Amino acid sequence: MADPLTSTELDDALASLAGWEVVDGSLHRELKFADFPEAMAFMTRIAFTAEKMGHHPNWSNVYNTVVVDLSTHDAGAITALDVDLAKKIDEVAG
Amino acid sequence: MADPLTSTELDDALASLAGWEVVDGSLHRELKFADFPEAMAFMTRIAFTAEKMGHHPNWSNVYNTVVVDLSTHDAGAITALDVDLAKKIDEVAG
Repeated sequence: MADPLTSTELDDALASLAGWEVVDGSLHRELKFADFPEAMAFMTRIAFTAEKMGHHPNWSNVYNTVVVDLSTHDAGAITALDVDLAKKIDEVAG
Repeated sequence: MADPLTSTELDDALASLAGWEVVDGSLHRELKFADFPEAMAFMTRIAFTAEKMGHHPNWSNVYNTVVVDLSTHDAGAITALDVDLAKKIDEVAG
């Protein structure tokens, strides 16, 4: 099981990510796309990554907006798994 | 533009739908699937329907759960468009 990040590890992770902040104990990012199909295409791409990792986002969508919250249920905290998934989201979202 | 449903129309609509209730001015349903890929497959199918209708859900996903809230932004209320999309969701979700 992944361990909770220390505050130093979390600060380092946030510095390496684009547009993420910690909200209510999760890594949180809001993404805007051109339209609804683009938002869904993003979610579908990330879905395959998440399933392969065995680590799934808490996310919501309205039209061209996707809001993502990442935390690790088993650890009750943000772990390296969340940072890995956030990095993959940044790669796909550009 | 679709008009807000009257309370009688809304009651009739709810009687014709499976598992929907009105929460915070939206048609609301929580759906459970076997796993994350099944939840994403459902969202992808509904996404094409929604885009074709030009009417999009407010929805969120965590693992095998999808929570859907339907209302019509332009009308600031639940309209026939929301009932149509809810019926299509019921058809796909079974």
